[in-house]
This record gives sequence, structure tokens and C-alpha cells, in this order.
Amino acid sequence: MLHLDERHLLGALDELAVIGAIEGGGCARLALTDEDRAGRDLVVGWMNALGLDVRIDAIGNVIGVRAGQENLAPVMTGSHIDTVRTGGRYDGNYGVLAGLEVVRALNAAGIVTRRPVAVAFFTNEEGARFQPDMLGSLVYAGGLDLNEAYAAADKDGHSVGDELRRIGYVGPAEPGALRPHAFVELHIEQGPILDEEKVQIGVVESVQGISWTEYTVTGVSNHAGTTPMRLRRDAGYLAASVNVFARKLAREMGGNQVATVGALTLRPNLINVVPNRAVFTVDLRNTDEAKLKDAEARVAAHIAEVAAAERVDVEASVLARFEPVIFDAGLVDRVERHARALSLSTRRMPSGAGHDAQMMQRICPTSMIFVPSVAGLSHNVREHTDAADLAAGAQVLLNLMLELAEE
Amino acid sequence: MLHLDERHLLGALDELAVIGAIEGGGCARLALTDEDRAGRDLVVGWMNALGLDVRIDAIGNVIGVRAGQENLAPVMTGSHIDTVRTGGRYDGNYGVLAGLEVVRALNAAGIVTRRPVAVAFFTNEEGARFQPDMLGSLVYAGGLDLNEAYAAADKDGHSVGDELRRIGYVGPAEPGALRPHAFVELHIEQGPILDEEKVQIGVVESVQGISWTEYTVTGVSNHAGTTPMRLRRDAGYLAASVNVFARKLAREMGGNQVATVGALTLRPNLINVVPNRAVFTVDLRNTDEAKLKDAEARVAAHIAEVAAAERVDVEASVLARFEPVIFDAGLVDRVERHARALSLSTRRMPSGAGHDAQMMQRICPTSMIFVPSVAGLSHNVREHTDAADLAAGAQVLLNLMLELAEE
Repeated sequence: MLHLDERHLLGALDELAVIGAIEGGGCARLALTDEDRAGRDLVVGWMNALGLDVRIDAIGNVIGVRAGQENLAPVMTGSHIDTVRTGGRYDGNYGVLAGLEVVRALNAAGIVTRRPVAVAFFTNEEGARFQPDMLGSLVYAGGLDLNEAYAAADKDGHSVGDELRRIGYVGPAEPGALRPHAFVELHIEQGPILDEEKVQIGVVESVQGISWTEYTVTGVSNHAGTTPMRLRRDAGYLAASVNVFARKLAREMGGNQVATVGALTLRPNLINVVPNRAVFTVDLRNTDEAKLKDAEARVAAHIAEVAAAERVDVEASVLARFEPVIFDAGLVDRVERHARALSLSTRRMPSGAGHDAQMMQRICPTSMIFVPSVAGLSHNVREHTDAADLAAGAQVLLNLMLELAEE
Repeated sequence: MLHLDERHLLGALDELAVIGAIEGGGCARLALTDEDRAGRDLVVGWMNALGLDVRIDAIGNVIGVRAGQENLAPVMTGSHIDTVRTGGRYDGNYGVLAGLEVVRALNAAGIVTRRPVAVAFFTNEEGARFQPDMLGSLVYAGGLDLNEAYAAADKDGHSVGDELRRIGYVGPAEPGALRPHAFVELHIEQGPILDEEKVQIGVVESVQGISWTEYTVTGVSNHAGTTPMRLRRDAGYLAASVNVFARKLAREMGGNQVATVGALTLRPNLINVVPNRAVFTVDLRNTDEAKLKDAEARVAAHIAEVAAAERVDVEASVLARFEPVIFDAGLVDRVERHARALSLSTRRMPSGAGHDAQMMQRICPTSMIFVPSVAGLSHNVREHTDAADLAAGAQVLLNLMLELAEE
């Protein structure tokens, strides 16, 4: 069996983490900043050193291609190297650098695969600076017009197009020109399940559909002492009631349904005044579109019922809505098979977070490999995955890509 | 029957409302500011013009005394003329100026009552600038040491003592030196009950006890997509659960029990992150101390239960705790009798807000007369009471004081 060089992978992760390093061991490399450019330059240098044909496309996606014996559709892996403002060192970077280790192993063994092998990193996966997130892979998969993507601006008014030009990453390639035979993304779980269950490899079957709604509730501000309960029109009460209902709903629906009230602001927010305004969000996710729609409908019905009883007005604003993505069943099976062949424990699971792979599934068979995140921490400088787990995931990736590249 | 001059009362309310007038028809006369001094000077001038013996005490309480036939304990009325930052024109002022109209009516009729009649306004009732609220009447009733009261400072570090000296209202009288035969305070309801039920006079039997607690909840911040419901330690969920529980508790307990979650702040307060911190307040009030204690215990038990299930830590900090005040039963009956004698509709009720009268009950038989607040609005520039209701309340005060002053 061809072995992946674990020590080289860990060294590369350390080296990339120096760029944009922040206190606590994390990274801040927001998309298209100087730090992102420095990270890109480093990884492109590594691609060149590995003998890859580096292709940069018009939205700044970078693909390093290793030629095969035949000019067939390549087997592609990849992820992203941008981070959130207080990011860890594994989210995204791990998948990209493990892909380069796959190439290094092939080079070292002098293997020329039947199909080309490609390693990509996509622009602005995090969405921490520019919306939408997964912007580069979305453009790559034909889901977003290039000019629309260029126009996306950060909060200071800097656009993706201007910033791409500024850092020198508007390439000549057409996004999506290289249509993969298969795409496999290796990533940390960013959730606690594998760590909690002491499972080594997550076999990712799907990405949860996401429904984000912001509600603005208008009630009547009244004295907390002099206003009888029956006369109250408490905007905060509705928000609280939705939080409690959402928890109950998720528990009742079970499966992969999750529901979160993460943000809430009350006005006037005083101890002795009934709130006349509440703005809060509901985040619903499920891997099953029908169930997600059901959850949305039940939350809406609860809100309507409480709003009528409390005599408050509620305005809903949909902030995001994505249908679930189901990965290629055959490719998912093969992730599981290769992990088991290495005597690694596995667990089938959905991804609760979004990934570039979900965009690639639009244009080719796609799957993902998850490795554990200690305590589920991610988007946090304390994000951590044990070296043995990093090595195990990369070896699964290598074995699967080798098989795909020979077919 | 001696008639109270409604037009003069309304004119005086208008004239006082000019001082510190703010947009929308309200007033901003925070305690011991230049505006408060101007208001005090105006009312003291009116007291002098009415021939009252004006006595200013060491905490700035002002009492205008009209001599009686005998040197007995006086019948006293009064309230306050300080306001909150966005106050109305009736809260407090109405009771003070109606008291002056009682004197004017006695003067006009040439009546010399058996007992002296006194009209007071107390320092810093609102507590909007200096804590505690009802500071002047609390000192008057012996509940707060004078030097402690002087040391109370506003958020800019200005003390009550310094500000009293600055505006020239440290008087020679000893607070509480004049011990009334009875104290009757006329006030707007500041709640919606009388307005909603179309009742003219509120016969105030008691002031609700108040229990204010701030809770700080510490959970764990996690990804809203990747964290299964069973692994969450959601600080915001506990806060929501307490809000819903408090509503249910107040409904179940019925009577005068009210419960409010008025303030809540989540951290990090993001749509897709389980909150790791929630700071929220619970305001519980009841006229029955045993019931208030029961409500406190049930909220605490609910919090303990949810905190254990959610595996979050909760710290409680008591911000305020006052026992209910029960007014003198005989004097309460007499408010009702005098209102009915004028063919006014009445309703017995507690006060949900605090008033100077609750301090005076410590040293003499006390009661209160409420008139309707349109829509229950108070501490609001739109605070309003119809002229007919203002006149009716003042007439009840006049008749009751006249009776008390002859005994």
C-alpha cells in the first residue's frame, strides 16, 4: 500500500498556519486579504514544487493538475484555505494540504495514474468577508454568475473583483472548465459527534439543508409592575416561546433535525419594562427537504398562534435557504469501504456545516471524508484534531483517489 | 360641598410642565438638576402665595403647612415633582398640585380646619438619577440615614448632598419632624386597569412587593449546524424557558402576581452559534409576601431543573427586594366612601409601582387615590389623564382631607 507522509502533512499545516497566525494557535486569513494572498502564494509554490500544472480561474480558484496516462476527466480533491476571523488551522487547510500529500506520495512512488489527479482550493468558502459563502465553488459549479460574484462587497465596500485583482488572483482559466470524474473533500467534522463516539472516520452522506429566518416582533412597552398579565403584548415572550418550541420540535422530529435561536435583541431591554420589540433568529437544518419544510411550517404556525394570543405583530425575513445536498451514493460507499479496509471505525453522518463539496456535487459524483474535531470546536483558535486522525483521513483520501484515478 | 377649582389645577399642571418640557408634551426634570430647582422654585412660590408655612428639610423635602385651630398632627398630602428622563406631566406633579388646590379651596371658603393641613413634595422619588428611588420619603420615614442618602451618587459621580447644596435645597428642618395624623397621596395609576375597565377612582389597598433578580447563565458556544440537540448546553434556551415558565406561573397564581423578563442579552448573539452566555432579569411582584416568596421559590426551582438538564451554570444576583406594603384599612375604606359619595365608580387595587405613600405608611395611617392613565402609559411623554378624571380625583382628596382635618 502506498503510504501517506503524515509528518510532512503536519509540517505543511504548521507552516501554513504561520500566515495570519493569531493568539492561541489559530489563524485569521479572511478571503482576498493580504494574508490570504500570502497563504495562496505559499500553497501555489508547493504545487509548483510538486510539478503540478497550476491553473487559476477567473474567480481565483486554484487547481493543481497532475497529468495522467490518458487525457480523461481528473479525479479531484480540495477545499479552501481562507479562514474566519478567529479560525483554526485545520478547517479547509487540512483538505487542501492532504491533497498535496496524495500527489507527493504518487510522485515518490513514481506512479502515473490512468486519469489526471487534481488538487483545488476555492475562493471565499467561509463567507466571513464576502457573501455568499462557498462563492468560488458555487461559481465553479455554474451556480453563480461571475459578474455577480465580482460585485459581492465586504462591509467596507471592497468588492470581490477589486480584491481579486489587487492580490493578483484573477486567472485566465474559465471556472468549471475542468469537469472532474469525481470530487472527494477531506475535512474536519467541526462538530462533536465523532469525538464523542470515538469514531475515526465520518462517512458524509449529505449536507443539511439550511433555513435561516429573522423575526421582528412588535408589541407594546408597558410597566412591569402595573400591567396585568392579561393586558400584556410582550414581544420578548413570543421570542422565548419560539425558542422553547424549537427545542421541543427538534427533539420530537429527531433524526438530523436541529433548531437554534442564536440571536435575540430586546427593546427597551430594561428590567421593569415589558419589551415592545424583539428581533430574533431561527436556524433550522435537516438533511431531508420535506422534513425541513415541515419544521419551517410548524415554527410558522406556532408563531402565528402565539402572536394572535399575545396581540403582537411579527415580520419574518428569510436570511438564507438552501436545500439539502445528497452526495453520490456509490462514492459514499467507497469512502466507507476504504476506511474499513484500513481497520478504521466509521459512522455515516450528514454535514451540519456547508462545504465546497456540496457545490461540486452539482457537476460530478462527490463525497466527503470527516475526521474528528476535539470537543466539536471549530471557527475557534482551539480547533484541534489529533495527528493520528489527520493521518488516517489523509490515507483514506489517498487510497480512494488512487482507485478512482485508475478507472 | 366645597368645590375644587378644576381649571386652576389644569393651569398649574400646564405651567409646571413648561419647566423641562420635552418634545411630545412630556417633561425631563431629573432630581436635583437645574430643571428640578426651577420646578421647586415655582411650586414653593405657589405655596408662599397660598400663605403656607414652607418648611424645607435636610434632604430637600418641601412641606407647606396651613395652620389649624389646634396645634395637632397635620393631615398631609403630597407626592413628588421630579420626573424620569422622558416623563409625562402628571406622574407625581398631579398629587402635589391637587394638594395646593385643596388649600386654595379652604382659603377661598375661609375655612380654618381643626388640624393643620400640609402639602409635601419629596426629593428623588423616581430614582432615575439617584438610587434608591423614593429617597426623600424614605429618609422622612426614618428608613435611610441622612448621610447615606447624601452619599448616593449619579452615574457622573455627583452626590445627592452636593447637588442639594448646589440647587439650594438643604433646609433646616429635620426630616420626619412633622409626624402626620394621616397621609393621603393622589396619583395617576400608571397602569391600564382603570382605563380598561372605565372606572373613575382606584382605591389603593397596597403596594406590591418587588423581587428583582439578574441571572447570568454560562453554557457552551457551539455550531448550530453540527451540534446535535442532545449535546447542547444552550444558555439562551434556559433564559427562554424561564420567560415561558414565568408567564405560566403568573397565570396560574392569578391574583396580583405579575412576572416579567424585561432584559436579556445573549453572547455571541449570532444566528448560527449556540449561545454560551445569557444575562437576563426576572421581575416578580405580588401584594402578598407569602405568595411572592412562593413565586421566587418556583422560579428558582425551575431554573435549577433546566440548568441541570442543559448542563449550564447559573449565577443569581438579587438587584432589589421589597416586601409588600399594606395601607391603613380604615383610611382605604374612607377613600372608597368619599369616592362613592361623589357617585364615582371605584375599584380596589394594589399599586404596581412604588410611591412615597408606601414610606409614609411606616409612620402614619396612609392611603392612596388613583385616577386612570389612558392606555396605562406612564414614564412616557404620551402619559395622559382626562381633565374630568383629574378633577374627580382631586375632589375626593379634598373631601377626605377636610374630614380628616376636622377629627
